[in-house]
Amino acid sequence: MTLATAYAVAAPDGRFEKTTVERRKLGPDDVLIDVKFAGICHSDIHTARNEWQGTSYPCVPGHEIAGIVAAVGSHVTGFAVGDRVGVGCLVDSCGECENCLVGSQQYCSRGATWTYNHKVPEAVQDGGITMGGYSTQIVVTQGFVVSIPDGIALEQAAPLLCAGITLFSPLRHWNAGPGKRVAIIGMGGLGHIGVKIAAALGAEVTVLSQSLSKQDDGLRFGAHHYFATADETTFRTLRGHFDLIINTVSAELPMTKYISLLKLDGTLVVVGMPPEPMLIPAPSLIGARRSVAGSLIGGLPQTQEMLNFCADHGIGAEIEVIAADRIDEAYDRVLRSDIRYRFVIDTATF
Amino acid sequence: MTLATAYAVAAPDGRFEKTTVERRKLGPDDVLIDVKFAGICHSDIHTARNEWQGTSYPCVPGHEIAGIVAAVGSHVTGFAVGDRVGVGCLVDSCGECENCLVGSQQYCSRGATWTYNHKVPEAVQDGGITMGGYSTQIVVTQGFVVSIPDGIALEQAAPLLCAGITLFSPLRHWNAGPGKRVAIIGMGGLGHIGVKIAAALGAEVTVLSQSLSKQDDGLRFGAHHYFATADETTFRTLRGHFDLIINTVSAELPMTKYISLLKLDGTLVVVGMPPEPMLIPAPSLIGARRSVAGSLIGGLPQTQEMLNFCADHGIGAEIEVIAADRIDEAYDRVLRSDIRYRFVIDTATF
Repeated sequence: MTLATAYAVAAPDGRFEKTTVERRKLGPDDVLIDVKFAGICHSDIHTARNEWQGTSYPCVPGHEIAGIVAAVGSHVTGFAVGDRVGVGCLVDSCGECENCLVGSQQYCSRGATWTYNHKVPEAVQDGGITMGGYSTQIVVTQGFVVSIPDGIALEQAAPLLCAGITLFSPLRHWNAGPGKRVAIIGMGGLGHIGVKIAAALGAEVTVLSQSLSKQDDGLRFGAHHYFATADETTFRTLRGHFDLIINTVSAELPMTKYISLLKLDGTLVVVGMPPEPMLIPAPSLIGARRSVAGSLIGGLPQTQEMLNFCADHGIGAEIEVIAADRIDEAYDRVLRSDIRYRFVIDTATF
Repeated sequence: MTLATAYAVAAPDGRFEKTTVERRKLGPDDVLIDVKFAGICHSDIHTARNEWQGTSYPCVPGHEIAGIVAAVGSHVTGFAVGDRVGVGCLVDSCGECENCLVGSQQYCSRGATWTYNHKVPEAVQDGGITMGGYSTQIVVTQGFVVSIPDGIALEQAAPLLCAGITLFSPLRHWNAGPGKRVAIIGMGGLGHIGVKIAAALGAEVTVLSQSLSKQDDGLRFGAHHYFATADETTFRTLRGHFDLIINTVSAELPMTKYISLLKLDGTLVVVGMPPEPMLIPAPSLIGARRSVAGSLIGGLPQTQEMLNFCADHGIGAEIEVIAADRIDEAYDRVLRSDIRYRFVIDTATF
């Protein structure tokens, strides 16, 4: 067992306080990681504040983890002490169901184990709740650790472990690439990485953002077009235009208007979690054989593919690195969209 | 110009009355068809009774048309007098947009011309509204006429022109076939043909019907399994089971429950027109990269492919042939679901 320094909230309205968490004794398949950086994802905020219900306290969020291997178990083959590694939203899954067997652990039929606020499987440890990356160390079974290529700084890689794979996976699954028109709804933590990846994949990329306030950034990240959705003419101009739209916005959107922007056989993929059910009139789909789909992060093989792709294309998250004593302030700024584009906590400040 | 005998309603609450309609003078690309049989589609009822708004009266419905060629224009190459032919939901389209060019005329970007209650394009005729197949004759441009193979009786072929293609097109588009688990929601006019086609395509077919009252028929049509959706255990038993679900029911359904029956990457395709928007919680899609899609009849090439496929596999609609004076009664029986499975009007009784 290892004691790690961590930052936790003790209640839905609590502030982050320094504490310690127990990390399990290194098993034969385990990797002990010195966490260097942890990104702040909007999910962290929802969970820390119990907005999705079911949060166990104390809660240590963080599933955008980048660090260095500190020790490995006797059966670990892919990692050695000193390696640059990452951990994302998942730390375990059954490994036996048809989805796990094809490397789609995020869709594990028996339910994957999430990196924080999730019951630890009994096979791993009796009782307990997973504690995330706002911590100096973490122990993860080797199948859920990925390598961070030398081409990406650790702090820029951290947000790729959730935000990056959340966009990369649907872009790849729905074949974003040359000759495809792709729209990214929202230019936040998720969207800005989506723009970079979609452009690097060779697609013609359009950002659909509320206003044009981030247009310069969007074009710099590789977008070919940038439209304000507050401007009604946008929806007339772009009607029937896109092969693929990725919606990164968790707020409720007028779905019919966005669906109308899809061409024949186009797909709108939801990666956020709007609190209310989407209202989708059947004719909006039927009229051009359109689809609305959902996508959840990515499996481990694809997460590694994403990191390699980002390294090859010089893609990292746009970040603001903060010290541990500014987590609460960062949360408030995320809620005000006052961040370009992702906060990353430096655990050297713990 | 030809005068054809037809049955029309004069008002939303009117009864069908015998009348005459003018059919345009045969142009060089036109085919004059002696209509022998016209199926009764639920859309006919919605339109005749103005339930979708915008009905022009008098209204002659009918877009499941089977007949014999009576005359052809000078440029007609594919059809000759005496040929067995069909006409479905469309009688024209722009022919130039990207969707028409790939044979998906139903998705014509400029709007296809529907077989009844639709403005006739100015290029074809100045003014006027299309009049459908409850009529002894119809004139249709050759590109919108299909051949009915000898293997299918005309009266059994008629419903294939709408109901058949409405099911065939999504089954083909989403690759129903060997190794795929396909569910058909609803065992009515659309559903029963869907069961036959999906089974002939080699898929493992399950009917999801409110009750088991039509189970014997369903299994006879080729279904491998039959479940009652009124039984809550159905949704537990079949959770995560299907690659493809085709929803033929226009009534509002609890979408989350049906979506939960899809496995990873499964698609639920809506072919009916529920009056209210569907309520779709994002997590129901995100949890297994599921899609909800819509599909609208099929293009002309695929409609011909469907008829050839049905002839090859001995597939026709299950029908009850009626005389013209029973159309109103038939409408009432359709609304009571008191028909196995499609009414077809015999125009010899006009």
